[in-house]
Amino acid sequence: MDLNDLPTPALVLDRGVLSANIARMNERMRRLGVPLRPHLKTAKSADVARLAVAGHPGGVTVSTLHEADYFLERGFADVTYAVGITPARLDGAAALRRRGADLKIITDDIGVAGAIAAHGASFAVLIEIDTGGARGGVAPGGPELLEIGRRLDGAPAVTLGGVLTHAGHSYDCRDEAAMAVVAEEERAGAVMAAERLRAAGLACPVVSVGSTPTATFARDLTGVTEARPGVYMFCDLFQAGIGVCERGDIALGVLASVIGQRREENLLLIDAGALALSKDRSTAELAADCGFGLVCDAVTGRPHGGLPHGGLKVASVHQEHGIIACSSPIPFESFPIGARVRVLPNHACMTGAAHDAYNVIDGGTEIVARWPRCNGW
Amino acid sequence: MDLNDLPTPALVLDRGVLSANIARMNERMRRLGVPLRPHLKTAKSADVARLAVAGHPGGVTVSTLHEADYFLERGFADVTYAVGITPARLDGAAALRRRGADLKIITDDIGVAGAIAAHGASFAVLIEIDTGGARGGVAPGGPELLEIGRRLDGAPAVTLGGVLTHAGHSYDCRDEAAMAVVAEEERAGAVMAAERLRAAGLACPVVSVGSTPTATFARDLTGVTEARPGVYMFCDLFQAGIGVCERGDIALGVLASVIGQRREENLLLIDAGALALSKDRSTAELAADCGFGLVCDAVTGRPHGGLPHGGLKVASVHQEHGIIACSSPIPFESFPIGARVRVLPNHACMTGAAHDAYNVIDGGTEIVARWPRCNGW
Repeated sequence: MDLNDLPTPALVLDRGVLSANIARMNERMRRLGVPLRPHLKTAKSADVARLAVAGHPGGVTVSTLHEADYFLERGFADVTYAVGITPARLDGAAALRRRGADLKIITDDIGVAGAIAAHGASFAVLIEIDTGGARGGVAPGGPELLEIGRRLDGAPAVTLGGVLTHAGHSYDCRDEAAMAVVAEEERAGAVMAAERLRAAGLACPVVSVGSTPTATFARDLTGVTEARPGVYMFCDLFQAGIGVCERGDIALGVLASVIGQRREENLLLIDAGALALSKDRSTAELAADCGFGLVCDAVTGRPHGGLPHGGLKVASVHQEHGIIACSSPIPFESFPIGARVRVLPNHACMTGAAHDAYNVIDGGTEIVARWPRCNGW
Repeated sequence: MDLNDLPTPALVLDRGVLSANIARMNERMRRLGVPLRPHLKTAKSADVARLAVAGHPGGVTVSTLHEADYFLERGFADVTYAVGITPARLDGAAALRRRGADLKIITDDIGVAGAIAAHGASFAVLIEIDTGGARGGVAPGGPELLEIGRRLDGAPAVTLGGVLTHAGHSYDCRDEAAMAVVAEEERAGAVMAAERLRAAGLACPVVSVGSTPTATFARDLTGVTEARPGVYMFCDLFQAGIGVCERGDIALGVLASVIGQRREENLLLIDAGALALSKDRSTAELAADCGFGLVCDAVTGRPHGGLPHGGLKVASVHQEHGIIACSSPIPFESFPIGARVRVLPNHACMTGAAHDAYNVIDGGTEIVARWPRCNGW
């Protein structure tokens, strides 16, 4: 199969760019002396996971128990489920552990810690710490940390594994210096929580941090035992917009076909709309608003010759229609109906999730592999 | 299975509300004397389709050839594929027709009309008309209409079936009077195009219009032979926001579990985030901005007792986290970790597409059926 024959819309992944992104993050982590436990909520693919864990201990991070099951089936037994567990999910987590998963679950709630302790099955638990993202997590300096730690530690079947945090507010940063500050907040908060647990006589072997911006710009990770970035593998327009990568580092795109021309309005219609691209508008907050995605050459993923970088963008979407606008006149003769383009995504996690599989290219037009994704719940 | 045991996040469909929505649209169409060819891009379900076509000729509308294949396999042979065809898809369309589909394709392009004529297979083609949506379609009064009509009519294997339009700008309306005006524009444009084709000696048996707002508020559909609304079956917060339905008519929701409390910030975390709800923010433009969805009672789909209608809403989303905010203090004791809520969607088409199947309820907590969806391409 060739890019020129692939039915559209279709998700395309450039393996060479992916490998370069992984190598770059590996080199950063090597310098910082911290191994990766890559977050696979972006890729949801065992094929991508094998590339991402190479040279690391082999543990992975997931966002659903469905992903944990998928990765366990494919040989990834060391799995951290990095979303706060609910009591109703403990049976499912216990079942995964009985099947051989070294599954770590997380909590920030004393009631849930009690439910874990009372369940009876063997669990490994990390305490979720809030280092500024204001999503899940207890304060690193507050009383809940030690209460939860003691509750878990006191349960015979439960192993208190350590602490985990995600500095989600790194996504609010707009430059490297700000991201370095957040990375240090993330590190310092997690390490403080770990030290408080240890000072109270509780075990805390794992100190887990992670987001792509903080992993990219952290200057020091002393005390941290693992990092969990995820989107670095693919990159996207949001990450490029905040300075984490270049647009040329974006490994993921949606192949689309032109299905209409509106010459008077200087618009093109393509068959990648809201379902194929997602409605993510995260670049709307950035200096370079990329609409619903930037439109590039189908084969190279680079801007079309003669057009300004970012000149062609998906300005609006309907369910199966994308409407491309341009700040300069569109050369319509280059975009007849059926012509192919590649749309770079605002947010790789959202756009990837709209598709069942990656059509893998390696710099050319040949589809060298088709890698399935593990979607849903 | 019961709503209280269903793993979350999960898509829930209330069959009673669905049936009432379908009955209401059927009664409108009966008064207007026009049968429905319901658009199934919203539901993507043969089970829903069977309810929607009852009492109508049985034809359906789809947005992808994948849907056309799915519905053909389930006994729906009369299918209109209402997105502009590309030459690369003609082989697929011809294959569906050989398998027994009475498939209608659409075009607004003279070059594509030529490709259809030159293909050699038997096709039935409608000409797409722009009646104001500025998406696909030729002007009803312009020269392209007759050029395309003659090109198709002159091809021995091609049947010129008529005209089709979608007044997408009905979604820009904010009251009934404005939607009635757009409905008349849609009708008048389609009928004008049909009359021009007929005056030129060309056949035009089909005059197809449709959107949920125009089908709801059209006062007269003289000259129209079918209407193609879709979202009326489920309704959503956007349709309620523009006055097409009441919030109580929303048949679709996402069942979610509380996974965290942030009492100081007056926030709840649930396990339905960007992937389970979609990132659709269409209500942001309306008087009642519903965030990423309104949070209701899990069983009834109605506002929680004692809380203002619309008081609990999903204010922000991460991939698997939804963050619920409230204009008044959240009664946290009513929302322990594991408590269940139902999130009403901004846009049923987008939220539905995030899930593989409907968990069907009928007013109570019992899951009375599980209806699969036909997602992807």
